Amino acid sequence: MKLRDIGEFGFIERISQGCLIRPDNVVKAIGDDAAAFKTAAKQITLVTTDLLVERIHFLRKATSGFSLGYKALAVNLSDIAAMGGTAREAFVSIAVPEDCSIQYLEDIYRGIKSLAAEFDVNILGGDTAHSTVDLILNIAVTGIVSKSEILSRDKARTGDVIFTTGFLGDSRAGLHLILNDIETRSKKHRDLYEAHILPHPCLREGRYLASKKLIHAAIDVSDGLSADLGHIVKQSRVGAAVYAERIPISQNLQSFSQKFHFDPIEFALAGGEDYVLLFTVAASDASRIAHGYQKQFNKPLFAIGEITDSGSIELIDREGNTKPIIPSGWDHFKSY
Amino acid sequence: MKLRDIGEFGFIERISQGCLIRPDNVVKAIGDDAAAFKTAAKQITLVTTDLLVERIHFLRKATSGFSLGYKALAVNLSDIAAMGGTAREAFVSIAVPEDCSIQYLEDIYRGIKSLAAEFDVNILGGDTAHSTVDLILNIAVTGIVSKSEILSRDKARTGDVIFTTGFLGDSRAGLHLILNDIETRSKKHRDLYEAHILPHPCLREGRYLASKKLIHAAIDVSDGLSADLGHIVKQSRVGAAVYAERIPISQNLQSFSQKFHFDPIEFALAGGEDYVLLFTVAASDASRIAHGYQKQFNKPLFAIGEITDSGSIELIDREGNTKPIIPSGWDHFKSY
Repeated sequence: MKLRDIGEFGFIERISQGCLIRPDNVVKAIGDDAAAFKTAAKQITLVTTDLLVERIHFLRKATSGFSLGYKALAVNLSDIAAMGGTAREAFVSIAVPEDCSIQYLEDIYRGIKSLAAEFDVNILGGDTAHSTVDLILNIAVTGIVSKSEILSRDKARTGDVIFTTGFLGDSRAGLHLILNDIETRSKKHRDLYEAHILPHPCLREGRYLASKKLIHAAIDVSDGLSADLGHIVKQSRVGAAVYAERIPISQNLQSFSQKFHFDPIEFALAGGEDYVLLFTVAASDASRIAHGYQKQFNKPLFAIGEITDSGSIELIDREGNTKPIIPSGWDHFKSY
Repeated sequence: MKLRDIGEFGFIERISQGCLIRPDNVVKAIGDDAAAFKTAAKQITLVTTDLLVERIHFLRKATSGFSLGYKALAVNLSDIAAMGGTAREAFVSIAVPEDCSIQYLEDIYRGIKSLAAEFDVNILGGDTAHSTVDLILNIAVTGIVSKSEILSRDKARTGDVIFTTGFLGDSRAGLHLILNDIETRSKKHRDLYEAHILPHPCLREGRYLASKKLIHAAIDVSDGLSADLGHIVKQSRVGAAVYAERIPISQNLQSFSQKFHFDPIEFALAGGEDYVLLFTVAASDASRIAHGYQKQFNKPLFAIGEITDSGSIELIDREGNTKPIIPSGWDHFKSY
């Protein structure tokens, strides 16, 4: 069966099944000029959006439809997590080239719906179009958060402890495996591969942290530790010191780095797409937050450094030597 | 100056100016992981999104950056209008190929901001990426409407009068001029051309009509009268009769049709992109609505037919002969 056989509206009917999983607040789902829904009183509305272009962000040959859809939603949910919010509604715009099969498209929606179901997110609308050669996917997500719990990038203070919620650099290693056609089935490689293709957004972690009302600044690590810490430092008008040996590097990334002769710290600093949370909290609250988090999630927070008043970011090595970190995450336009 | 000189974040800084024009309800604008804003108590939130792909929806050579940006926002605002809503916040995702100049990009944002300012819409966020060959533009827009005034497609009733708020088919004629390199500067052609490239969303008209609480079903004419009336008929489980001679055809389209040997009714039925509102109201309320509208806007509503219980749409000609209308607007996937 080809897309031309079922048409745009036939396709929308097919993918609409299973999109509405939390109907209580929804006034209009897919099928009218706009979606319409109620937002709980006194909640702030959050909106984030992310555009993926074939051959820029993904290779169709190397990416299953499921993982493409899953990740496209995951990166948006990660943004809601970084604001301390609860994700609510998703809107999927897709432009489809002629050589894309219905099966691949249905797999994309299967990936989106799988993650949406986990976090109780409705798919309430979107847009469907033809494309020339590249598959295009834009997802926009709304969320809610109370005004007293919203997290932002601009409230870090000198003396704050800098935490991450998980390992850094795994996703970059997974990308290396994909780009170099290295097998990804062995246990060690599979975790790195999955860190890249199926990142799990930290919505529960973000909500937990926000609810404590002690977090100063927060961001999700999408561009790499150096770039994302750079955003906090710039917007909070502070500096930061990061201890290289405290940066959480997984056992898998250690093995990978030895085998392929990479510096795992470089992957952590400049790799990106880790989708863990990076946040700061006053030193006096740090151990309380860390213990509570450990108890809640049965996994640790990683304290990697401190906020300073230096105006820049320094990396401190095992011997106490410091060197400046230039934010060096992905910049789409610098590559031209 | 090239994009690579200023980089993604430099570009975002440049286009961020003038995006926040209604700051009162905004908690976080461009620059954090997600935008955050307050919605007035007891209002329903509306969301719509529209994806434009170069060489599918527009030709860069034939489209100024200004009109591309303007129209990309206009089509979303038209969807909010069709729900009876007030547009509030816009989110612009753009993927840029290497051969696209900063000037063209800034013109796109100038077009978006021009229309946003007219309707008091903030640009609160988006995404910026590299593209391979085609310029991609996705805009998502939020709006608000009270529950008692929301308009939808599914509430037309047998006996309703069907109205449009303006001329149909002009946009399709404008597209013909563009595709065939026919001059567009003469007064007659310019209006058709502008109907296609700078459609004006009927937000004020939609709000006025919704506030009367008498409208049964509404939609904006984006796919063509036959397809969009088809949506109302299908979703309301009714039928419709349209009188050919009552379909509002502009003087300009009359002249164009004579000159180039087209049937203007065909353009009205199947052309699309008119972005006028199409709605139904009980026959007993029709003249009250029409008079109030005329007084409010100093322009007429056009009563083009009635809702029937036939389950299909019929066109009735001057002699009273009827023929079925098959909804025949644009279907992206049928063209494969």
